[in-house]
Amino acid sequence: MQDKKGLSLDALKSDNFQTSRELMIAAYRSVRNQTQQLCQPLAVEDCVVQTMKLVSPTKWHLAHTTWFFEQFMLMNFFTGYQPYNEQYLYLFNSYYNTVGPQHCQAQRGYLSRPTVEEVYTYRQQIDAHMIDLLLTAPQDNIPELRNLLVVGINHEQQHQELILTDIKHVFSSNPLMPAYNTPDSEPASHPIQSMHWIEHQGGLADIGFEYHKLSQDKQYQALSDLFQIDDGLAARALLCSEFCFDNEKPKHTTFLQPFAIANRLVTNGEYMGFLEDQGYEKPEFWLSLGWQWRKDNNATHPLYWYKQDDIWKQYTLAGPLTVDPNEPLCHVNYFEADAFARWAGYRLPREDEWESATSNCKLDGNLMESNRFHPITPDPQSNETKLIQAFGDVWEWTSSPYTSYPGYQPADGALGEYNGKFMCNQQVLRGGSCATPTDHIRNTYRNFWSPETRWQFTGIRLARDI
Amino acid sequence: MQDKKGLSLDALKSDNFQTSRELMIAAYRSVRNQTQQLCQPLAVEDCVVQTMKLVSPTKWHLAHTTWFFEQFMLMNFFTGYQPYNEQYLYLFNSYYNTVGPQHCQAQRGYLSRPTVEEVYTYRQQIDAHMIDLLLTAPQDNIPELRNLLVVGINHEQQHQELILTDIKHVFSSNPLMPAYNTPDSEPASHPIQSMHWIEHQGGLADIGFEYHKLSQDKQYQALSDLFQIDDGLAARALLCSEFCFDNEKPKHTTFLQPFAIANRLVTNGEYMGFLEDQGYEKPEFWLSLGWQWRKDNNATHPLYWYKQDDIWKQYTLAGPLTVDPNEPLCHVNYFEADAFARWAGYRLPREDEWESATSNCKLDGNLMESNRFHPITPDPQSNETKLIQAFGDVWEWTSSPYTSYPGYQPADGALGEYNGKFMCNQQVLRGGSCATPTDHIRNTYRNFWSPETRWQFTGIRLARDI
Amino acid sequence: MQDKKGLSLDALKSDNFQTSRELMIAAYRSVRNQTQQLCQPLAVEDCVVQTMKLVSPTKWHLAHTTWFFEQFMLMNFFTGYQPYNEQYLYLFNSYYNTVGPQHCQAQRGYLSRPTVEEVYTYRQQIDAHMIDLLLTAPQDNIPELRNLLVVGINHEQQHQELILTDIKHVFSSNPLMPAYNTPDSEPASHPIQSMHWIEHQGGLADIGFEYHKLSQDKQYQALSDLFQIDDGLAARALLCSEFCFDNEKPKHTTFLQPFAIANRLVTNGEYMGFLEDQGYEKPEFWLSLGWQWRKDNNATHPLYWYKQDDIWKQYTLAGPLTVDPNEPLCHVNYFEADAFARWAGYRLPREDEWESATSNCKLDGNLMESNRFHPITPDPQSNETKLIQAFGDVWEWTSSPYTSYPGYQPADGALGEYNGKFMCNQQVLRGGSCATPTDHIRNTYRNFWSPETRWQFTGIRLARDI
Amino acid sequence: MQDKKGLSLDALKSDNFQTSRELMIAAYRSVRNQTQQLCQPLAVEDCVVQTMKLVSPTKWHLAHTTWFFEQFMLMNFFTGYQPYNEQYLYLFNSYYNTVGPQHCQAQRGYLSRPTVEEVYTYRQQIDAHMIDLLLTAPQDNIPELRNLLVVGINHEQQHQELILTDIKHVFSSNPLMPAYNTPDSEPASHPIQSMHWIEHQGGLADIGFEYHKLSQDKQYQALSDLFQIDDGLAARALLCSEFCFDNEKPKHTTFLQPFAIANRLVTNGEYMGFLEDQGYEKPEFWLSLGWQWRKDNNATHPLYWYKQDDIWKQYTLAGPLTVDPNEPLCHVNYFEADAFARWAGYRLPREDEWESATSNCKLDGNLMESNRFHPITPDPQSNETKLIQAFGDVWEWTSSPYTSYPGYQPADGALGEYNGKFMCNQQVLRGGSCATPTDHIRNTYRNFWSPETRWQFTGIRLARDI
Repeated sequence: MQDKKGLSLDALKSDNFQTSRELMIAAYRSVRNQTQQLCQPLAVEDCVVQTMKLVSPTKWHLAHTTWFFEQFMLMNFFTGYQPYNEQYLYLFNSYYNTVGPQHCQAQRGYLSRPTVEEVYTYRQQIDAHMIDLLLTAPQDNIPELRNLLVVGINHEQQHQELILTDIKHVFSSNPLMPAYNTPDSEPASHPIQSMHWIEHQGGLADIGFEYHKLSQDKQYQALSDLFQIDDGLAARALLCSEFCFDNEKPKHTTFLQPFAIANRLVTNGEYMGFLEDQGYEKPEFWLSLGWQWRKDNNATHPLYWYKQDDIWKQYTLAGPLTVDPNEPLCHVNYFEADAFARWAGYRLPREDEWESATSNCKLDGNLMESNRFHPITPDPQSNETKLIQAFGDVWEWTSSPYTSYPGYQPADGALGEYNGKFMCNQQVLRGGSCATPTDHIRNTYRNFWSPETRWQFTGIRLARDI
Repeated sequence: MQDKKGLSLDALKSDNFQTSRELMIAAYRSVRNQTQQLCQPLAVEDCVVQTMKLVSPTKWHLAHTTWFFEQFMLMNFFTGYQPYNEQYLYLFNSYYNTVGPQHCQAQRGYLSRPTVEEVYTYRQQIDAHMIDLLLTAPQDNIPELRNLLVVGINHEQQHQELILTDIKHVFSSNPLMPAYNTPDSEPASHPIQSMHWIEHQGGLADIGFEYHKLSQDKQYQALSDLFQIDDGLAARALLCSEFCFDNEKPKHTTFLQPFAIANRLVTNGEYMGFLEDQGYEKPEFWLSLGWQWRKDNNATHPLYWYKQDDIWKQYTLAGPLTVDPNEPLCHVNYFEADAFARWAGYRLPREDEWESATSNCKLDGNLMESNRFHPITPDPQSNETKLIQAFGDVWEWTSSPYTSYPGYQPADGALGEYNGKFMCNQQVLRGGSCATPTDHIRNTYRNFWSPETRWQFTGIRLARDI
Repeated sequence: MQDKKGLSLDALKSDNFQTSRELMIAAYRSVRNQTQQLCQPLAVEDCVVQTMKLVSPTKWHLAHTTWFFEQFMLMNFFTGYQPYNEQYLYLFNSYYNTVGPQHCQAQRGYLSRPTVEEVYTYRQQIDAHMIDLLLTAPQDNIPELRNLLVVGINHEQQHQELILTDIKHVFSSNPLMPAYNTPDSEPASHPIQSMHWIEHQGGLADIGFEYHKLSQDKQYQALSDLFQIDDGLAARALLCSEFCFDNEKPKHTTFLQPFAIANRLVTNGEYMGFLEDQGYEKPEFWLSLGWQWRKDNNATHPLYWYKQDDIWKQYTLAGPLTVDPNEPLCHVNYFEADAFARWAGYRLPREDEWESATSNCKLDGNLMESNRFHPITPDPQSNETKLIQAFGDVWEWTSSPYTSYPGYQPADGALGEYNGKFMCNQQVLRGGSCATPTDHIRNTYRNFWSPETRWQFTGIRLARDI
Repeated sequence: MQDKKGLSLDALKSDNFQTSRELMIAAYRSVRNQTQQLCQPLAVEDCVVQTMKLVSPTKWHLAHTTWFFEQFMLMNFFTGYQPYNEQYLYLFNSYYNTVGPQHCQAQRGYLSRPTVEEVYTYRQQIDAHMIDLLLTAPQDNIPELRNLLVVGINHEQQHQELILTDIKHVFSSNPLMPAYNTPDSEPASHPIQSMHWIEHQGGLADIGFEYHKLSQDKQYQALSDLFQIDDGLAARALLCSEFCFDNEKPKHTTFLQPFAIANRLVTNGEYMGFLEDQGYEKPEFWLSLGWQWRKDNNATHPLYWYKQDDIWKQYTLAGPLTVDPNEPLCHVNYFEADAFARWAGYRLPREDEWESATSNCKLDGNLMESNRFHPITPDPQSNETKLIQAFGDVWEWTSSPYTSYPGYQPADGALGEYNGKFMCNQQVLRGGSCATPTDHIRNTYRNFWSPETRWQFTGIRLARDI
């Protein structure tokens, strides 16, 4: 097998390498390249536009992820470092009050400058400084630098997903409905398995992240699998193997009542049943805030759906497509997910239920590296008692509001603003989507959005009491 | 002791009476009279005004509580019943989509008609029909009627509290700052005990309501205590003793981590420390939404506070008063409560922690029947390890978002809209306030408001991990 | 004839009386009584409600007109005068920045206090002081006091009209649609004359107010006519005969192109033709701002109209009535008036055209003293070349924006804020309405409202070029 | 002199040429080239951004002006013409309801596609078709085509000014404050002449446009002057010499009262006097709507001004500059202009006064072809009785609301929407600005904006009554 980017699988497997500066540099380069690869299909104009407050221009994502490394690593650890541009510290800070004021989020689309090219130059310069720092920093600083680098890589991966969801919103707002990419093959449409319930007996359960060193064999196998996809992916996964976000900790005990969870995601076809039953006209299925949202926005179907000649179509990153009834449903918000579940006679899972139910699921699926950027119809399976689609395809709404775990400690300093201050009026989502990097997701990962959000790749898995 | 309203304590104690129609009528009359007593100090004009969407005119409360009995009892169980006024079914329905459309909540203050007098006539007529129904309904209907009556009484008690909080908002919006009532004596200002931590070892805990029949002795004692205050209060308590709202059920097991909770409420003086430390200027203490709220509203102190000649004053239902540093803090929202706790180095309690910690607290305190309608400074206590102020004074913000308990089933029919549909973007509050009827509160009671709310009597009790 | 209020027609005719303090007092008492008469049909609750920013509670009108006399006369001319209530100076100042800050206009409906009764007491007290002042002021002050009194009387008359239009909006916002009054007889429905054009040759024309002393005979006749209606009306008219608002001055020359103006007002039936031709769906008839207004408000018919069983009904101060096709159209805004005129192939008159065309019209019509408070179908006339309905029924929209006349000088001091500062984005209306006091209107009178306004009694007279 | 673009001055002077197809083509090419020249300094990103509803992206201007020719000329006169792109007819229609629906104005900045390059291709294709049409159209169509071409050229010239004012707003919204261009030399700062009053005796005056054929000598001279600047400019002027917008017609008689008008524009220094006197804090100088605007926007100085180290700076298209007290004031809205005039003890001129007072002024000044794009300090003049700066520098606010002239007839068809439907809530401005093309302005030209507008180059000339 070819050694891409100079990494060999053997090197990755060696114990020395796992603590080496080379690994850090390889992982850093890999994530930075991957971000830029995602922007290749875009015209300069595409990188400038902001179509709602929560959507940021591609250009801003490219700069903000760079600012993150500059602000939290170069500014603190690179002796004598001078900011690349004092105003960038203001323009590309997202929400870290501790390090300084920020440009108005809703006005990121007002900035024609710096140009896209200037942003790429900014990236190159910071990359060069970062490599320099990682090569030359005193050994004493390496542990802390490694921690920050791992956060920065995971941060950039979150923005990779946002680059995709944001440009989808931008393109969908344009009557021309341009495509972001054209997949090599049309998605296959075929029947899928029936929905089945997987039961869980309840009782005490441990929830949250704790690092477990894998056996050498298992680790080698995991590395080899990732290496098959991309050597940088393997390097990042290796570097970040002990990482989780602060909101996934501490691991703690909860008590679950018995429950059952669906083996697969809700499909477009099942959701059409809700539409045909006038579900958007019946307040009895909706949360009070949800009904308010539905009326205020005159919502009558998932985001990106529209009717053409009486047929449901949807805008996708591959352009407009007919809605496939067997595909996983996507782009519903919490209100819609909750209303659908109530209409169906079930409910959404709690996040601790989800985490328990998926604890043995394999960490693969239709993720960003599939280059589909759209959920896919699963192959029919003989074993219908197996929970499928746990990772990738769509983020799964849970009925759990986003709160701190008992004993939660936010990270020190400005990075403490990363997660903790958002623990209000948000719902937890689990499992990653077709736009989530493969090495970024795990069983304990807690995504969160406010309940009206639906421009992310969000869908539904049902649950019920026993 | 005098037999008010014809009830004797002996009658209340008799087993027969507890299932009698007389008890139902006595309890009904009692709550209806109490509501009207609360409105005695008001001018006709006071009963018409709405100063924000969430505030309803007194007149509307008087009519809506009446509509509740008409809609859910008379319309369903009184043979041949014709609505008092078809349009009232529309005007005084709050949010029950299942029974029909509603007048716009934000425009309740646009209605000069029906006049206050006409609303009182409406009350009298419905009362007459209700007594008639309770006296003459077939015995088969009595169990269901009794259930609905109990809900209706508890519903009216919630609106008694709202009548007080709403008129406080109305009066405070008027530069003349009129008083609602003038207490017989000035509130005593005196030192209070230090704050101490009461520890709880964690582990499995049962949370939620389950009816436990008291021993006859204990029940007699409770009845006698309430009878001392008011015979109608005793009747209502007796009738409702098995009642809880659907959101308090089912009783279920949770697992608590060890924690400590403050023995008393946070005082005005302690909160002034937060103000003096520029707490409202330091984003690091605030939730992201909280900081947004604080900026959007230019908030710099609790609601109803204002500075006069450099001294903090507050509007109270007894008119403007100087802020007493030893009194419990009141009229802060969740954002302020959370920011204060973080500033103080602690946190707010979870609702299951609160319920466990107060499970042995006696059900009394500064409640509505004290006729203070304002929190009071507690007497210093020798025993500082005892948790005080659990009930009354102020509703205590918890860090728990308002969600369903595992196995939750909303009530059938339209009353299923009472609680369940609000389980989104709200925080749970516990313990009742100085405006909560004495027989309406209990250890498992879950109040809920959205995090920016602060016109209710809301305050803070601190907690911390161990 | 009976001497009401102690005035005799002979006294009114005497030269001495015209400069007497008695005349001032009689006129003052008359206007004050008339205002209170208008409020007789209202319940206390009706006087408190504000249904949009531009609508003030009746109570506020009662107090504000009183404040006007207190602020501008008692405070300046009554030696040693102390304000009745310092806070009233703030609460009941409308928009006079020069004399001090004001309570927020949009929140006048938030004030339950002072009560209606307290406001009437305020009126009585100020009235007593005013009579005292008018009786005892040094003779040197009388000319200035007389000027201010005349302004105050005219000011109160404007608020009489507003009391009616505002309570109409309040009642119409209530699904109960209560009536303000019930006329003695149903309005007669009968055919009306065709619309005819009255031509004007154009050329130089003098526009604006200038006092012309009437011959004694003419003055006697005018006084007698008014005295037949009400002796107070005659007194007010006599006192104010030299008065006009500052915006009607100076009289000046303009040059008119030849034009024709309609002999009568546009009727409901004619406007229904516009509705039936889908006029509200055709942007080609509308001003750009008008089309925006129509879409933003989803407007499809005049204010207060609604369809019931496919028949047009309208809310009137006498309660709901079927729309009479022969009655003058009412409650359209400038956008609707302009669109209708364009659809009809004509245009609205300019204000100088209107003033020239009506210069010989008699000053009577369906005005406030008719106690109809609704436009009426005119009697068919043999002489169709006569311009009818110039005064009363409805204010007639002109195509003239409200600007200053050449040489305009606003009044000195705070009263300079009365008119001048509103000369932007308003249109001039002419002729008075069914809610305008008879002695308040004249041929040169310039009313003004912003183009989207339609809760006033506003209608249409057409014009065209020749 | 060199024959640029193949035009010779002699050819321009020949009678035949004035009715030739060559002239039409030369004028068309000239205006189209000039538009693209204006965009040369811009990066692709700059052409995409919209910073407020009234600001359109440069790209949109480039496409919309092209659409104008396609929609009104090619679609109607080019046999067999198929639209370049059906969706462009929707995307690039501004407000012509008669020809079809339009993309939302406020969302023009949401469109990343078509790209800037695709828009330039669109321009090239339409240009080729236009030349083809002008060369090959049947002679019978030429008069109408010529009329439409003249409108299209003038339309494109209006958008040339908008391209400049809009990009100024875009750049100024960016903390990096990039410059659009860098002038060859710094603007000279020097003293200016005192303000003097030029008196006008009033009386009958003719207002509005009427074509007067110049004597051959005068026409030759005018052509030569323009040719010195640019041959295309001369061609456009020749082609359009009989043109005015419909709102400048018909010429009609008005009657003026005697007045005086200032010889020059108000300067920054004079406006600083208003600032120093706390003019923005004194409601007595402001229109009621103006004071509301000032409070709602917390306005305290002209747009683009800011204080740095206690010195007034302003953003200009050449980047940030210190405010020169002798330069003409710019970027004030009608409210500010009116308040300043009242503070100064004067008033703004009426539009008929302005037109009469400037009727003999020469049609030159600091206009777009100066390539300054900023007002300049005039040279001191010996003759202070001469009115200077009538054309160019800044548009001058008049006190005249924008209404139709007596006898006004909007153009037929969709072009009737060009001006007439905006005649409500707008003020007339006169004289052109430093961003107005030289051959686009004239003494009768009526520009109009709503009173709160200030991102155009707008300033003040004072007037007073005599």
